[in-house]
Amino acid sequence: PKVVILPGDGIGPEVTAAAVEVLREVAPDVNFEEHAIGGGAYDQYGDPLPQITRDALADADAVLLGTVGGAQNSPWNLLPRHLRPESGLLALRKLLGCYANLRPVRVQPGLEHLSPLKPELARGVDILIVRELLGGVYFDQDRKIEGDTAYNTMRYTTAEVERVAKVAFWAAEQRRGRVTSVDKANVLEVSELWRRDVTALRDRDYRNIHLNHEYVDSVAMLIVSDPSRYDVIVTENLFGDILSDLAAVIPGSLGLMPSASLGDGAGLFEPIHGSAPDIAGKGIANPAAAIMSAGMLLRHGLKRSDAANQIDRAVALALREHPTPDLGGKADTRTFTRAVLNAMG
Amino acid sequence: PKVVILPGDGIGPEVTAAAVEVLREVAPDVNFEEHAIGGGAYDQYGDPLPQITRDALADADAVLLGTVGGAQNSPWNLLPRHLRPESGLLALRKLLGCYANLRPVRVQPGLEHLSPLKPELARGVDILIVRELLGGVYFDQDRKIEGDTAYNTMRYTTAEVERVAKVAFWAAEQRRGRVTSVDKANVLEVSELWRRDVTALRDRDYRNIHLNHEYVDSVAMLIVSDPSRYDVIVTENLFGDILSDLAAVIPGSLGLMPSASLGDGAGLFEPIHGSAPDIAGKGIANPAAAIMSAGMLLRHGLKRSDAANQIDRAVALALREHPTPDLGGKADTRTFTRAVLNAMG
Ligand SMILES: CC(C)[C@H](C(=O)O)[C@@H](O)C(=O)O
Ligand SMILES: CC(C)[C@H](C(=O)O)[C@@H](O)C(=O)O
Repeated sequence: PKVVILPGDGIGPEVTAAAVEVLREVAPDVNFEEHAIGGGAYDQYGDPLPQITRDALADADAVLLGTVGGAQNSPWNLLPRHLRPESGLLALRKLLGCYANLRPVRVQPGLEHLSPLKPELARGVDILIVRELLGGVYFDQDRKIEGDTAYNTMRYTTAEVERVAKVAFWAAEQRRGRVTSVDKANVLEVSELWRRDVTALRDRDYRNIHLNHEYVDSVAMLIVSDPSRYDVIVTENLFGDILSDLAAVIPGSLGLMPSASLGDGAGLFEPIHGSAPDIAGKGIANPAAAIMSAGMLLRHGLKRSDAANQIDRAVALALREHPTPDLGGKADTRTFTRAVLNAMG
Repeated sequence: PKVVILPGDGIGPEVTAAAVEVLREVAPDVNFEEHAIGGGAYDQYGDPLPQITRDALADADAVLLGTVGGAQNSPWNLLPRHLRPESGLLALRKLLGCYANLRPVRVQPGLEHLSPLKPELARGVDILIVRELLGGVYFDQDRKIEGDTAYNTMRYTTAEVERVAKVAFWAAEQRRGRVTSVDKANVLEVSELWRRDVTALRDRDYRNIHLNHEYVDSVAMLIVSDPSRYDVIVTENLFGDILSDLAAVIPGSLGLMPSASLGDGAGLFEPIHGSAPDIAGKGIANPAAAIMSAGMLLRHGLKRSDAANQIDRAVALALREHPTPDLGGKADTRTFTRAVLNAMG
């Protein structure tokens, strides 16, 4: 199998390098090919997702992404929108047809104290957020600034709603069997369609799943005040962007949060943390989320759950024995990665 | 002065009655007129904001609202959108021209333990969220479901951005002088306009204010993991809906959260909690937020800060001596209200 590595900007290269080391160990037959994306790709090719990268993705079995984007005051942020680093990421999602972003939020036993929430609220939290990733206000063509008025259109079709809802129901079947669909149906027509279609799909094909509907503002409250009530959450692109980042703080370190984006073709796997330009190149970034994303790549992208489990176990062990600074420890990127490799025996 | 009381549904009548008792005490010259809104108004008049209520609002100096809406399974939720209780609320905001929703989030000293956050994070939190209330995806006319596709348009004009940003800058001048403007400018044209116009206004008229810009997903994280970094937050309608509810959980009880909506005409003052139909009519609802909203009505609506301060002090005292069940105490609506009245001497 062929895995394309897109290290990207900031700490992306360091953390993906660590993840590749681990992948080589548990899946020695995988071929890696590295390509440019984001701000660095713009600097080199004048395009945040250059043709050479697009070509390489055509026959990829899975993609491991680092991070894209620069600091707040980066000159990249002054480029026209379609040349900015983030546009490379959006174009990548679209090219791969990744319509379902899976964001597991799990508080590791013994690490409750890292959470900003009280330990009794953080304990046992185990949520999977499924965010629709190719629709809504992100991708619609009907967007513009005209004089002193700006427009974006939030648009969903039944087909878009159903395909991502299927992923949520499927995931719930492997978990606790409960799906919360999040919308703003008391205000938005788009949410009315969303709610109607998710409900119809459940009634038609997933009668074993317990489905409920909640408003996005209410979920923003409850995810903080009572996170244990959630199993799988499914929602549209913009709500999912906000809620998945919100939920990601519960475990206490973004350095522990992987993600998988699945769809028509090759899956895209990436840590959710940013490019952290302030610590880039220093060898101190926590590679745990990138390594865990490699684990998701093995599980969902290459269907190798044994190797994925091996990584998950090794990361849990390494976190306990060689915690990184964001976890109150001292391990640098290299030390932590070696601890993971050692733990795999 | 004339204050229109709109008790609404669920626990609305109980908590507004308590607030009116307190208002009568500190502002005996105020005339009160009570009218219907929400589900009850639909039942009585076939309209969630009936003409008789509209007429009464025409010469109001301020409006005190309870809550609107029924339970999840209420028949009101099956009505066409424009007849549902929430539409009465949206129509009311529009009628009054209330474009700026002010949501103070303050953790009362000594009540940090109520927060879902660790006490060291909750301590000293004092944020004012200014939410744009009449624009964006809530009010645009270009909305529809057409077969299997639904559309809503998010739209902002410079004039809409400026008028609410002014309220935020003005509020920051009375506080710690810092405004965080929240958008999704890395994806949305509407946010690009928002950011541009807020910046221009600051550079033109509010040079003494420290302004920064953050993405909505990032704010959702930071408001939980580091809430003390915020003074005034200003944002568009939908982001403000989500973020203001999110922030509202920090103090630990929605029963303590008032709000003010200001604009062209009479201000609208209301507790942020829902209609809680499960406990309606039992006399056990916590009226603190409604009473505090009456305080905001005196301060912002009738420009009577002395009376407003009197209410704030009395509520703080009553909360300590007669806490309601949501605060771990036993006081019912009547006991708590009497405690407030007593504390005012
Ligand atoms: C960088 C940005 C376009 C992106 C998004 O909003 O989708 C990011 O916030 C994310 O969630 O991956
Ligand atoms: C009921 C609903 C229309 C309303 C809104 O979203 O504005 C509510 O959530 C609020 O925040 O006051």
